[in-house]
Amino acid sequence: MSTSFLEVVEVAPRDGLQSVSTLVPTQLKIDLIRNLHAAGLRRIEVTSFVSPAALPQLADAPEIVAAAKSLEGLDASVLVPTVRHAERALAAGADHLVFVLSVSEAHNRSNVKRSPADSAAEYARVVALLPAGAKLRLNIATAFDCPLTGRVSGAAVLALLADLVPIAPWAEVGLCDTTGRASPAQVASLFTAVGHRFPTVARWAFHGHDTYGLGIANVLAAWQAGVRIVDASCAGLGGCPFAPGATGNVATEDVVWTMHGMGIVTGVDLERLCAVAQQYAALPGAQTGGRVRQALASAARREGRI
Amino acid sequence: MSTSFLEVVEVAPRDGLQSVSTLVPTQLKIDLIRNLHAAGLRRIEVTSFVSPAALPQLADAPEIVAAAKSLEGLDASVLVPTVRHAERALAAGADHLVFVLSVSEAHNRSNVKRSPADSAAEYARVVALLPAGAKLRLNIATAFDCPLTGRVSGAAVLALLADLVPIAPWAEVGLCDTTGRASPAQVASLFTAVGHRFPTVARWAFHGHDTYGLGIANVLAAWQAGVRIVDASCAGLGGCPFAPGATGNVATEDVVWTMHGMGIVTGVDLERLCAVAQQYAALPGAQTGGRVRQALASAARREGRI
Repeated sequence: MSTSFLEVVEVAPRDGLQSVSTLVPTQLKIDLIRNLHAAGLRRIEVTSFVSPAALPQLADAPEIVAAAKSLEGLDASVLVPTVRHAERALAAGADHLVFVLSVSEAHNRSNVKRSPADSAAEYARVVALLPAGAKLRLNIATAFDCPLTGRVSGAAVLALLADLVPIAPWAEVGLCDTTGRASPAQVASLFTAVGHRFPTVARWAFHGHDTYGLGIANVLAAWQAGVRIVDASCAGLGGCPFAPGATGNVATEDVVWTMHGMGIVTGVDLERLCAVAQQYAALPGAQTGGRVRQALASAARREGRI
Repeated sequence: MSTSFLEVVEVAPRDGLQSVSTLVPTQLKIDLIRNLHAAGLRRIEVTSFVSPAALPQLADAPEIVAAAKSLEGLDASVLVPTVRHAERALAAGADHLVFVLSVSEAHNRSNVKRSPADSAAEYARVVALLPAGAKLRLNIATAFDCPLTGRVSGAAVLALLADLVPIAPWAEVGLCDTTGRASPAQVASLFTAVGHRFPTVARWAFHGHDTYGLGIANVLAAWQAGVRIVDASCAGLGGCPFAPGATGNVATEDVVWTMHGMGIVTGVDLERLCAVAQQYAALPGAQTGGRVRQALASAARREGRI
């Protein structure tokens, strides 16, 4: 019998740090990525190429890419919202781009000042730029719920994907629960629907948040619907510095703990991962989440190990 | 079509406060119970009759029962581990007892210095004491996993229940994930098995912890297996003062938020409940959990409501 495997995409260096308002020194970011790699993570979203004025935290993207490329066997992806930033990322040596747009018109306009249709055209231009062998993830933000307009229908996601998928049928597609308000039933139903509608897409990914405590339940729903790639953030780092208390991404260590408990392989060393999570959690201004890090630390204290 | 209803049993006044090392004044406890009642909760585990020397926090159990009985329509239950404490509870006017024992022999001996078989005999004596009309919940602790000995087999739970159920076939039975290490698959499978094996038990309940982030996923698994009674603790209050970082019960507000999102009725006013959760979370020494309380407070701040 073949072993089940979940591909965990670590997003703390990008989605997590993006939410930390205090500037983190570049060398510390690189050390954290090295530690994540040493804990067995082989896919890391290492940074984002965006306007340094808008997100000063990620202004060191080129140095981060250079450092990440030196780590053996690491598939280091970078987020890009536009052609211009995709060009910068490729010039810096990135070979795995993550293009993001929102189903929700209001959210897309708020984020990138474009309609989803204009972002779709931008996506086509990014795909045309890619050199041979480059990898691509297409991330659909607000695929379940929008912070500005509420529930997003599955039909809207299917309609947007009908325009996007033919542009690069080989791309991995991530459906993102931006608000954390997706229900497990909705997650299962949408992944089942897109799988039937777009059989040429071989790789679907789920990107979830734990804002309302449904992070792990939604990851499990995605797994049960056949999804084998999940984004997660070490220490649950994430949230938004402008929305105190809005908590962030589902914690990588919670995902790994849950999957290992089900006999599913991730390749991650949970103990080493928890040690890195403690480092992330100690960053000034970090908004953390997840339960496993504290639960295991507490168990270790009881057993006199730390 | 009939509406789906989840009966939420609020356990913060007992399971939650039990973990708070600082003594909470009796009047404050009573105020909190009143506020929970005002938020729509109609089942509350209000206290426990145990040795005041072992748990000074719950030494005021008789006053708490008297106060709870004055609240209209409130089904106030109290935890009792032995006949002696059951007698005290009944003398104080309690009319709904929760008897608890562990499947795990090591855990039961550690908690009540008895084998599970001796506790089963104690259960029979408690049942014999009950006046007509009194209600009874039988709680099976470590029904999935034991902090001392690890995984508990479903067969062990079925064997113990085979002795216990005939003593009071009309009693409600709660299966408790004491460590928070149960998986959703295990929860679904055990509730399905006991439902088939003991068809005379009309009311099954799930008591879960969120120690490893699986709290809501396990509640959903129980719901899908047909369980319509769930224990939860306001603000996720719980854990153990002797095990720092060991986090507690699944948060009532997270359960209510999730269920309401699925169109399931609980009778609870979520906004009022979150206000009470803030009060519980502010208790000195409280170990809190859950995500919805903070997420909604943050949303309210963004909208300028608070």
